Amino acid sequence: MEDFIYLDNAATTRPLKCVTEAQTEAQNSFWGNPASLYSLGLAAARELSNARTVLANAVGANTGNVYFTSGGTESNNTAIFSAAYSLKRRGKHIVTTAFEHPSVLNPIKKLESEGFTVTYLSPEKKGYVSEEQIAAAVREDTILVSIMAQNNETGALNDVKTVKQIIKAAGSSALFHCDGVQAFLKMPLCLRDFDFLSVSAHKVGGPKGIGALITSQKVVPLLLGGGQEKGARSGTVPVPLICGFAAAVQNQPKFDVLALYEYAKEKLAGYTLNLPQKTSPYILNFSVQNYKSETLLHYLEKENIFVSSGSACARGGQSHVLKSMGLSSDISDSAIRISFNYENTKQDIDRLCAALEKAQSELIPVKRNKR
Amino acid sequence: MEDFIYLDNAATTRPLKCVTEAQTEAQNSFWGNPASLYSLGLAAARELSNARTVLANAVGANTGNVYFTSGGTESNNTAIFSAAYSLKRRGKHIVTTAFEHPSVLNPIKKLESEGFTVTYLSPEKKGYVSEEQIAAAVREDTILVSIMAQNNETGALNDVKTVKQIIKAAGSSALFHCDGVQAFLKMPLCLRDFDFLSVSAHKVGGPKGIGALITSQKVVPLLLGGGQEKGARSGTVPVPLICGFAAAVQNQPKFDVLALYEYAKEKLAGYTLNLPQKTSPYILNFSVQNYKSETLLHYLEKENIFVSSGSACARGGQSHVLKSMGLSSDISDSAIRISFNYENTKQDIDRLCAALEKAQSELIPVKRNKR
Repeated sequence: MEDFIYLDNAATTRPLKCVTEAQTEAQNSFWGNPASLYSLGLAAARELSNARTVLANAVGANTGNVYFTSGGTESNNTAIFSAAYSLKRRGKHIVTTAFEHPSVLNPIKKLESEGFTVTYLSPEKKGYVSEEQIAAAVREDTILVSIMAQNNETGALNDVKTVKQIIKAAGSSALFHCDGVQAFLKMPLCLRDFDFLSVSAHKVGGPKGIGALITSQKVVPLLLGGGQEKGARSGTVPVPLICGFAAAVQNQPKFDVLALYEYAKEKLAGYTLNLPQKTSPYILNFSVQNYKSETLLHYLEKENIFVSSGSACARGGQSHVLKSMGLSSDISDSAIRISFNYENTKQDIDRLCAALEKAQSELIPVKRNKR
Repeated sequence: MEDFIYLDNAATTRPLKCVTEAQTEAQNSFWGNPASLYSLGLAAARELSNARTVLANAVGANTGNVYFTSGGTESNNTAIFSAAYSLKRRGKHIVTTAFEHPSVLNPIKKLESEGFTVTYLSPEKKGYVSEEQIAAAVREDTILVSIMAQNNETGALNDVKTVKQIIKAAGSSALFHCDGVQAFLKMPLCLRDFDFLSVSAHKVGGPKGIGALITSQKVVPLLLGGGQEKGARSGTVPVPLICGFAAAVQNQPKFDVLALYEYAKEKLAGYTLNLPQKTSPYILNFSVQNYKSETLLHYLEKENIFVSSGSACARGGQSHVLKSMGLSSDISDSAIRISFNYENTKQDIDRLCAALEKAQSELIPVKRNKR
């Protein structure tokens, strides 16, 4: 089973060895309730505090800005509802993009149904959302701008650095939420550029079930209860998961992603590369025209190569991301996403390319099939 | 450090060895995204499905009734908001108790601020909420009844078996939510008695950060996104945590809790026992009058005995649970909660009693101090 090539690191990653070890150590030694007043609880609270510092340092924040959540989805939901509900008396206009993750789009759709108006910026052919587009969309009554740093299907890098200045220039008091789930530890993210920043552990070798919302703003809690996380997020704080998260941040393996990306781009140049003009080297999206994504995915699976036919977050359906780039359904229906981490090598790319050629020689193309 | 006596199992429990092992195995072998279409994802999805069956079987439910959440707090919040918002056109009356956990009381307080009216049943001297009290409170326009099975501070067992019949007899279409976090695996809980049942892993030797909402009802999701858990709870499903949870359920250690409880009750009979008339043997609450709970807690801590001065979920403040029993603040301020699991022995109780006697000989009583 272990002789497989995993090229779907944007969906999830193999937990780092040090992460599982940190979790095990915490479950053995720091399993007290961090809210308990005796030493076992305080030991857990101390581990929690150390981990909070690690997270804060990773994004230039203060420890007081880090709120642990169950993951990226909860962070995105909390940020969006928090901003919208705390500012709704000032305005009801939201700016976002058409290719956000569903955990951003669906909360915003809910707000739309409650009377908020939303401007959806489209990446179009260039594949990312530019400063000019954002500046043209922000109005005085805009109260929330939510734009992801790095798109999960194409790797597109949006212009998120200047959003806070744009908001200020528009005379708006909008808060800026950035879904940093895909970008975290892959490019510098600094809290001073954002009001809310969402991150997740399992995309960077950490455990599933833990993430953080990093913010200097007041948080309107989504989960009510014992008042943990300064009232922003109730529920017993899962210290072992958080220790695992911190271990992933502290021991994030370095690798020459750019070399791997350039190699893949060159080797796959014969296919249709769905390349944004500004893009991260961690994700490469391409289409093997006349072959359905899922058919190829399952063919590759038999060759022990794991790729994605789009976002792993929503099974089936056409990709709203590729659609927002204006790609035809032909291109979109045959799209394959590969995404890298430190375990990947150029040999993985070679094996992928060989398998793709073999696939085309064995599978019947869609168009020929239709005749 | 390991030579301590842990008598605070209602706050959290030491993760079972098999639990940490199951998590480690899952993180090593089943770390794929269960939503991914290839074998690594399907292997994770299979583990998830097995774990779901374990949970379902533990409470007489179907696998389709089990929705994994980040813990008891999220389960309680989801159930309460789900029931209230889906039935608000039929009525706006809620019945609950005055001694629920904050993760029940605070969502209900929020609903109260939104126009719902709430009847809070008080356990009073008898310490639990009876069938008669519930029957007297449920009205035709009641849309939610939320009553915990076992109270977390006193061990009180409420009459939750007949609530659904009471609701029917009242001509109400109310849904019944039961916070089963403290009762789960400690007494039989069967979904047919409830519409929503909340459980948590870390109270039964499982990992922190995972719980379940078990229900045959439609769930109005609190977290929106990729539509995992049949749309009821978005967010990448944390399979390793869920494997740990299932391992805890399957390997729950048995022990003679009743013998331990009776022994403790006898040995502590010289103190004021805050005993509900119907009670679980897992929790014993008593007051060492004239000594503040926190002072005693810290004294005991120095003797390496860990107990609670109330709920670990909310640091400080007077216990709303003991207040709801009509106990004087003298009794309430000196209350100590001990809670058992399989690791506890009669020797633990002996050491506790010896330490309490020593405490009284060394500490200055509050009243004498005031003179």
